This record gives sequence, C-alpha cells and structure tokens, in this order.
Amino acid sequence: MKIKIGKKSKSNGVQNGEALKQRSLQAHEKHRGKIEVIGKVSLKDLHDLAVYYTPGVAYPSLAIKDNKDLSYIYTSRGNRIAILTDGSRVLGLGNIGPEASLPVMEGKALLFKKFGNVDAIPLAVDAETTAEIVAIAKAIAPTVGGINLEDIASPKCFEIFDILQKELSIPVFHDDRQGTAVVALAALENSLKIVGKDIKSVRIVINGAGAAGIGISQLLLAAGAENIILCDTRGIIYKGRNDNMNQLKETISEHTNKNGLKGQLQDAVKGADVLIGASNKGAFSERLIKSMGSRSIVFALANPDPEIGYEDAKSAGAEIVATGASGVPNQINNMLAFPAIFRGALDAEARKINTAMLIAAAGALASSISKSKLNAEHIIPNFNDDDIDEITAEIAASVAKAALDTGVARAANVDTAEIKKSVRQGLKRYLNLEKAASKVGAEKFLNMLMKKKP
Amino acid sequence: MKIKIGKKSKSNGVQNGEALKQRSLQAHEKHRGKIEVIGKVSLKDLHDLAVYYTPGVAYPSLAIKDNKDLSYIYTSRGNRIAILTDGSRVLGLGNIGPEASLPVMEGKALLFKKFGNVDAIPLAVDAETTAEIVAIAKAIAPTVGGINLEDIASPKCFEIFDILQKELSIPVFHDDRQGTAVVALAALENSLKIVGKDIKSVRIVINGAGAAGIGISQLLLAAGAENIILCDTRGIIYKGRNDNMNQLKETISEHTNKNGLKGQLQDAVKGADVLIGASNKGAFSERLIKSMGSRSIVFALANPDPEIGYEDAKSAGAEIVATGASGVPNQINNMLAFPAIFRGALDAEARKINTAMLIAAAGALASSISKSKLNAEHIIPNFNDDDIDEITAEIAASVAKAALDTGVARAANVDTAEIKKSVRQGLKRYLNLEKAASKVGAEKFLNMLMKKKP
Repeated sequence: MKIKIGKKSKSNGVQNGEALKQRSLQAHEKHRGKIEVIGKVSLKDLHDLAVYYTPGVAYPSLAIKDNKDLSYIYTSRGNRIAILTDGSRVLGLGNIGPEASLPVMEGKALLFKKFGNVDAIPLAVDAETTAEIVAIAKAIAPTVGGINLEDIASPKCFEIFDILQKELSIPVFHDDRQGTAVVALAALENSLKIVGKDIKSVRIVINGAGAAGIGISQLLLAAGAENIILCDTRGIIYKGRNDNMNQLKETISEHTNKNGLKGQLQDAVKGADVLIGASNKGAFSERLIKSMGSRSIVFALANPDPEIGYEDAKSAGAEIVATGASGVPNQINNMLAFPAIFRGALDAEARKINTAMLIAAAGALASSISKSKLNAEHIIPNFNDDDIDEITAEIAASVAKAALDTGVARAANVDTAEIKKSVRQGLKRYLNLEKAASKVGAEKFLNMLMKKKP
Repeated sequence: MKIKIGKKSKSNGVQNGEALKQRSLQAHEKHRGKIEVIGKVSLKDLHDLAVYYTPGVAYPSLAIKDNKDLSYIYTSRGNRIAILTDGSRVLGLGNIGPEASLPVMEGKALLFKKFGNVDAIPLAVDAETTAEIVAIAKAIAPTVGGINLEDIASPKCFEIFDILQKELSIPVFHDDRQGTAVVALAALENSLKIVGKDIKSVRIVINGAGAAGIGISQLLLAAGAENIILCDTRGIIYKGRNDNMNQLKETISEHTNKNGLKGQLQDAVKGADVLIGASNKGAFSERLIKSMGSRSIVFALANPDPEIGYEDAKSAGAEIVATGASGVPNQINNMLAFPAIFRGALDAEARKINTAMLIAAAGALASSISKSKLNAEHIIPNFNDDDIDEITAEIAASVAKAALDTGVARAANVDTAEIKKSVRQGLKRYLNLEKAASKVGAEKFLNMLMKKKP
C-alpha cells in the first residue's frame, strides 16, 4: 500500500488555513468522529449467539480464569491497546483537556489500524496527577495488550512511563519520546552511510530537552553515539549546571557533553557533524548551519514548522536535511514507527518495549531503503514512493525478534517470516474493510432509501 | 433483520455440553476474540491525513476546548460507551477476575453493535473497591457517551451505580438490574392485557433480592404496581425484618408488602396473580404454581436454568409462562432492551437514563406486538419471528422522547421519525459491514495468497 498524493492542490495535496479548517470541521461532523467498534465475527443465528455469547462464552472465560495468558488467545486483548492521555499537552495546542484531545486520539487510533492493524481504544481521562493516571493505566491493563501514552505534559509523562514500565507486564510506549527517536535514529543511520561517517565518532548536537529531545538523546546513546551535546532554552546542558535542570536532564548530563562544554547553542554547533532540532520554529539560522563541519546533517523536527526550512538548510550548506514537513524530501514522520513497533510487540506478546526493540525497529526502517535507492533526498521512506506495508512487516518482525532475544516475549517462538506474512495480510484485509466500511456508509443507505421511496 | 435459527440442531440451533465447549474455544481462538476498532473514514491520501490528523485535527480539538458538548459532534464519543466490569460476578461463574470476564464483555460489545449500532469498549478493570471503580468510571467519562455497568458483585454494583448516577452527566446503566426489569415489565404489561387484569390491583410476588429482583421490584413500583411482595432466601421481606437485610431491601420494604406479611415464599405466592423469579434453578415447584390464583402469570428468569421449566409451569396451571430459555415461547432476553435503550439515550445525547426512559422502553417493547399477534405464547418479541430492527427503532425513539420530556436530553429536539429512520439505517449499514468484515477475513486473503503463489 502507498498513500496517494491527493488532487486538491499542486504541492502535496494539503489544503491550508481556512479551507482546511472548514473541511476538517465538516468531515468530523459528517461522520461524527472517526472510529467505531465492530465484530470480527458475524452473528447469523442463535447458534452463533450460543457460541459467542451465553452459554458458550463461559468456556473461554473459565479457561482464562485458570490461565490469564489465555486472554491473548481467546479475546481481542492481544491486538488491542489503549491510547491514554489526560489532554495536558496536545499537539501544539497545550493543555486542552480530555474531551478536546479526542479528535487527536481517534486520529491516532485510525493510524494504528491503518498502518499497523492494531485495535486502539482512545482513553482521554479526566485526571490530574501522575498517581491518578498511573492508577487508571494499571486498572485497565487486563483489557489491553499494551498502552500508548500520548500528549501528556512533561515531566508527568516521564514519571508515568517509568512507573508503568516497571510495574506492568504489558508494553508501555511513549510515542512523543520513543516513536520520534526511532525514526530519527533510522534517518541518522542512513545519513551517516551517505556521508561516510560513524555514529561512534560524529559530534551530534540536539536542541530541545523535552520529550522528543530527551528520547532522541537516549536512543542515540543506546545505539552507540559517544559524542552528543544536548541544549535547551538556556543553552548547553553540562554536568553540574544548576539552572533549569530536572531529573532527566541530570541523568542525560552524565552521558553527554563529556568535555563539559558550556555556552549557547551556537557554541555547541560550531564544527558539529549532526544537528537535530526538537525545539521551535525558526530556532536554527542559516548562519548556524553554515558554522557546522563538512558534510553536515540537519534534522529540523519541530512541528508543525521546523527550526529551519528544508531549502534554507540546504542552501546554507547542509548536505542532508530532514524535517517533519510533507512536500519536501525526507519527512521524519513517526507514523513510520509507532504502528509497526506495536504490531511487533503484540505479535511477540511482549511484556514491554525495551531499547533493543527500538533499535531493531530503527534498523529495519533504515534498511528498508536499498543501497541503490539511498541518497540525500531519500534517507527515510515516504508515504508516496515506498511500500509502507512491506516496511511495517519488516519492522514488526524485527521488533518481535528483539523481544524474544531479550527475554520479554510471552510467545515461546517468533517466526519472522510468519509475522511478516500475517502483517501483510492484516493490512491488506483492513484496506479492503476500510473500502467496505465507506461503501456501506450512511449516505449510501440514505440514497437507497430515497430511491426506493421517491 | 431477524436472527435465523441455525441448522446445527433440531430444536433451536444450539449445541450443548462438550460440543459447544469445543466449538466456542475454537471459534474464539480462530478469530482471537470478537471485536476490532476500525475507521469510519478512509485515509486515501495525504489530504485525508491532513484533514483527519495533523494539522486539520487541531480545528475540532480547539472547537471542543471552547465547548465540551461539541465532543458529541466532532468525535465518536456520542456513539461510544464503556462496558465497565471488575469481573467480580460474571454470568453464573462468580468472581473470575477482569481477564476472564473479557470474552463476556466482548460478546456484549458485539450485541451492542449488532442490535443497537452502539460502539462499546470493554473495560475489564483490576479494581477492588467501590471507590476504585467509581474513580475509573469518572476518569474515563470524557471519552464516552455512556457507561454500562456489567457483572459487578452486589452490593458494590448498587453503590457504584448510585454514585455515578448522581455525579456524572452521562448515562449510566446497570443492565443486570435495569435491562432485565425493562423486558420483564414489557412482558408483564402484555400478559396483563391477555388475562384482563390491571397492574395496580394484581398481587405480584418476586423471588430473589439480587440485582435483577431489586431492579424488577423498583421498575414495577414505578410503573404503578401497588401490591408487590419481595422474597429472598430467608423468605418474605417485611418492614422491620432484621435478618439478612441491606440498604436496598430496607428501602424496598417501605414500598412493598403493605400488609406486613411474614413467612416463606409459599405463604406469599398463595393466591397471587403474578410470580416472578430472579433466583435459582428449581426454586419453584409445580405445587407452588398450583397454589396461585386464577389466570396466573409466571416468569421464571433464573439463568441459565429457570426456577421452573416452561412446560412444567404450564402443566401446573399457569396461564402465561416466560423464562430466559430459548427454544420455548416467551424468552425474556435483555438483548431486547439494552442496545435499544442506549441507542435512544445516545440519540438524545442524554445526561442519564432515568426511570421514565425505562418505562418508555418497556412500553415500546410491549406495543411492538400488535393486538392480533398477542397471545399467551407470544407476549414478548423473539429473535426468530419479529423484526428486531423495527423494535429497536421504536424503543430508541421512545427512550429519546422520554429523555427530552424529562429534561435530561442534551439535544435540543428529538424527532422520533428521524431517530427511527437513522436507527434502521444504522442497523442495516452494520449488517452489511458485518458481511463485508467476514468476507475480507484473514482466511480469504490466505486463500488468495495461496492461489497467487501456488
């Protein structure tokens, strides 16, 4: 499957401003949101009722009572996750509350199904504290095979993640941190192949110490980077800095900036090989890019507007540039990661998503571009040119394998060929189901009704 | 739509015992449970992504931020409910825990969609106390348009219901109590038409003071019954009894058994017009039935086996008999009520499901059998002979109307003709979607794959 470019505009099929606003409000209202819950099985007769409901349903229930792991076999739990949020930091909109976060969570659920065949339940909760959100996550755990933490403000999101990661035996994923990090690592791996540098020796500057910046730093360190400097709004983070620190920055400062460099962003960037932004629109000037070393790599990942535009960074001398924007090369889009990572974790019936699984995901994502197709304008797959289903299958299989290898899989065995096959089938099935669902839409029946009774 | 009788057996299409066990375990394993979450909209291109996800999704989110009620317009919340359980009293299986309750909750979700076009999310939670379950329900409320409390042990279920009913502004429904009561009231209304008696003057004995028995007592009182005697395992409940009482029984004792009768079940039943069992298999002897007054009505609702079998009660002289069993006339099945009641409550965007709405539901259900078709063997619709879609449409419209009339509707207006039309369309749409979903099942694609690559 490839996502086609729409016909609505010349550039990338995306309307903007007022037109997009009207179109989005109308589309959301017309369908009353975006997701529904349907049966995987049909109830054709009383026999089906007896098998799937009373009295037959008692048998799977009794089997699970004796062995809770059978809930992965006899229920949809093993393919179901919760998208848990308190709506405290939604997109660029801030703390808009649980109700207002629902359109985003339903959108995310749509992406989980479309690109990972994962059944995602939005759970936008009215909860304030870390303890409250942790309590809810722990309570609902028996119903789901995993939890995706979404759009929760920092530092709550980190605290919640750490507690749940320790105390639950289902995977917990923090997409803002981990999903973005996986795609950035994959893009970096491919970029380094092109410029002929080694992750161990390159000097990497990361600007932004929020969820994404911290996540990228952590994953790059785990993947072998030895020379990272992390900056925030106060400049370079160094061990012993007192200003504007928190627990995560403290920890990161132990493993980055080994020479104890102090100063501002420009002091860190001078001569650097890689500059990654997870900060704000306009945070990188052309002058800043010009100060980098030769064959420089710039990822400007601020959303919706990057730290520096693709063209500007290129003209300032960066050899490889990636942003979050569509319509220019090298879109760093975590849609490439989160559905596939959960797909693999669920297929392995994993107890958690650990760093090895994230690195495996990044590796599979990077490898999905063959040597012959790899170039400065194609360091990461995109939804127009690449076969996303195939990439999802590869990532999922790698993640499941890593889960098994690191001892966090419930499944006794992971057959990667079998997983790839079932991922392809699942995504293809959903594509057809999606077509069917839109074909049997309310409008059609309204029309049929109109025609019948003119 | 009618549910067909299956071809698997002579009687009612239902296999029993070991065969059913094997069939049920296999079917649940084959499909890995029973429900999935899909998109109501398709993502065909980048334009769709921009409308339904970023950046377009920000617009409905911002609109809801300013007016939370718009979550009913711009998200699927208005058609979504949670089926909330702690697994503490599941079917006849007792306290089997949340994981083991999942097959039942997924089955219930299937019924909500099939018979009410309601999107139901199972939430089987790891929680012990009333306070914990209440906290979870209140936290998840922003995500759903209603909550169905399911298979929670007594008296927790009553406590939870009362708190949520007071403190939430979305409908909370307790099917074990209220769903069964609605169908029983409808069946009683029709039975009384046949025997020519009035609900105000008949003497009604209800055996069983659990969720169902209490619920039936409460609803019958609200519907005008003036002469009810409630019995439990210790016999007749009377005002001032000290043995085996609780808050609910105390309250009920204020409004029933006005003459303060004491004694055992048989003392209450002697000469009674109506006997309703919500107790245990075998609790009613033929002798007990024989002791009733003329033109007697017996509802033996214990599940899966009634207090007395249909034929035995008839041969003991009851004029009208109903049980929970399929395969004999007059099945009291709360599937006739809960999907339609929620359908109506959601269509009115109701803040609660009140007694007036339950009485309206029972009235619509009773009226769904025309005078000419009403007889002692057909006091309540059944899934084989009656048009369930039409009945759901009638109930939903009546419930929505009652919500408006009693001031608990968020919707400014309730057009019952419009609701009936949309219910019919919604159920028809799902029937087609269900067919499509099973057609695009994994097996088919496996076969396609096999054929392509022989």
